[in-house]
Parts: sequence; structure tokens; C-alpha cells
Amino acid sequence: MKKHIVISLSIGIGLNLVLAGTTWSEEAKVTYPEGYRDWTHVKSMVIQPGHSLYDSFGGIHHIYVNDKGRNVMIEGGSYPDGAVLIFDLLEAKSENNAIVEGKRKVLGVMEKDSKKYKDTGGWGFEGFKGDTRERVVTDAKSACFSCHEPQKQSDYVFSTYRK
Amino acid sequence: MKKHIVISLSIGIGLNLVLAGTTWSEEAKVTYPEGYRDWTHVKSMVIQPGHSLYDSFGGIHHIYVNDKGRNVMIEGGSYPDGAVLIFDLLEAKSENNAIVEGKRKVLGVMEKDSKKYKDTGGWGFEGFKGDTRERVVTDAKSACFSCHEPQKQSDYVFSTYRK
Repeated sequence: MKKHIVISLSIGIGLNLVLAGTTWSEEAKVTYPEGYRDWTHVKSMVIQPGHSLYDSFGGIHHIYVNDKGRNVMIEGGSYPDGAVLIFDLLEAKSENNAIVEGKRKVLGVMEKDSKKYKDTGGWGFEGFKGDTRERVVTDAKSACFSCHEPQKQSDYVFSTYRK
Repeated sequence: MKKHIVISLSIGIGLNLVLAGTTWSEEAKVTYPEGYRDWTHVKSMVIQPGHSLYDSFGGIHHIYVNDKGRNVMIEGGSYPDGAVLIFDLLEAKSENNAIVEGKRKVLGVMEKDSKKYKDTGGWGFEGFKGDTRERVVTDAKSACFSCHEPQKQSDYVFSTYRK
């Protein structure tokens, strides 16, 4: 957004701040998923050292889905607008022959809005650092969608509901 | 229960089948927790070989709580009647430097009813084998409550809500 505002100001403050405002809402920041810990728990996994995704996603993660996405997650199909999926990544600590949950590393969010996010399969992607609201995804297309894109047959979602 | 029925039949069928019926309902079978996968996910843990509980509880487990117990789980206190906690134990499979969920080993249930289960801290305990409705707990007092009893300060519950 900084880029937009700078360009706008260089052309003409009045008109372009409005345009910048429009762009802002169209680019659409993914909403922080309040209350997701009460959503449906889909599945979990521990990614350990040596795994190809360890650097990005090492730890224990839980997938959650909100009410709007729940049935599609279970039965398959295309997610409706408003569906939200969570990738809740925590440290995995080894203690006395057990793996326990540590601090939150990142809270990953996929938010379906087929218009707002039409360039990335209808999904907005965001990551919130630890327990904060600090956003960590700067380019959802390269950082997130590029990996999700081959999953088109499942509406770009990797996770399947564990029975 | 078999014991009760055998004793009853040896004394007199009419009266004692009624008594056996009464005893049955007072002993109170814990209800199978329909829909628990949509309840609040409390925390998870992987118990590995070498852990003192591995023989009984080896694998990855998830704790869930229903709406009636949710706030107490988060804020502490004594659980109201109707609160239900789930211990969902799955195989933990090691695959390519990751631990993934396998088959369900047992579905453990704690159901609060301070009258029905007054001899075990107000909690009924049951385990359902794998994905079945087959009950595996024959003596809740020795098999379950004996371990939970020292947790009196948290109403006999081990788990604490992971933030």
C-alpha cells in the first residue's frame, strides 16, 4: 500500500487518495479470525527437522475451519465465500518422551472471497506472527498461492478432514 | 452388570430384574459424545515410546470440551453437570520426518453429573474402542479416577486450555 499512496500523491492528492482507498479495500486484508479456537478442528500434524517444509512450518500445527466451510471440508466441493481455514502453528517441544505444544509461531489464515481474491483462486492468504496481529505475508501469490495452486481439484486446499 | 443380573436371577426374577434395571441406570453409562469433533479443541500432545503412559496412551491425542464445559476449561473452576471432556487418542505415524495421525485407538470421555457419578468426583469415565461404540472401561474408579483423583483442585481434570 505504501507504494500506492506514494504514486497517488505524486499525481494529485484529492482524486488519488480516493483511488488509493478503493485499491486498499479491493486488495482486502484478510480479517483476523476472532474466535477460531471454537471452530471445528480438522486435523493435526508435527513437522520435524529434515522435512522439506521444516524451515517454514516446523512444529505442531492444527487446522481449523469455520461453520461456513465445515461441510465442504468434510464432504468436498468448492468453498463458499466466507469460509475460513486456519493453520495454527505452534512450537513442538520434546519433553520426557512426549511432544508438547509450545508458543505460537504463526497463525495462517485462508479466507474465501471469490471476487476480492480472484487472482489467487478466490482465497486471501495471511499469516499473523505469534500471538500478535502483525501481518507476515507480503505477497500472497508467490508466498502462498504458488504452493496451493496445484490443489485446484480441492479448491486449493491441502487439508482433508480426519475422521 | 452381568454380576448383578446373575445374582438377581438366583433370588427372584420379578423383583430383581427391576432392581437390576435401577442399578443399571444409577451406575449410568456415559453417553457416546455425538458431534464432539465440532466442540472446542483444548490442546494436543504426542506420547512416545519410553513415556510412562505409552502402553495405555501412546499416540497423538486431542482434548475437546463441549459448550457446557468450555468456560470452566478456559477460566478454571468447577465444571457444571452436563460438561463433557474428550480424550481422542489416535495412532501417531512417523512419515518422512513428520508425525501424522493414524487410526483412532480409543475415544475417552469424562461426563460430569455430580449425582450419578458421586463416587468418582462427579465424573463418569468411559472409553470407546477405535471408531466403535464398544465400551472398554470396566471399573472407572480403579481404571480412571485413581489417576485423576489427585487433580481435585482442578475438578479432577488434567488438561489446561492451550492459549
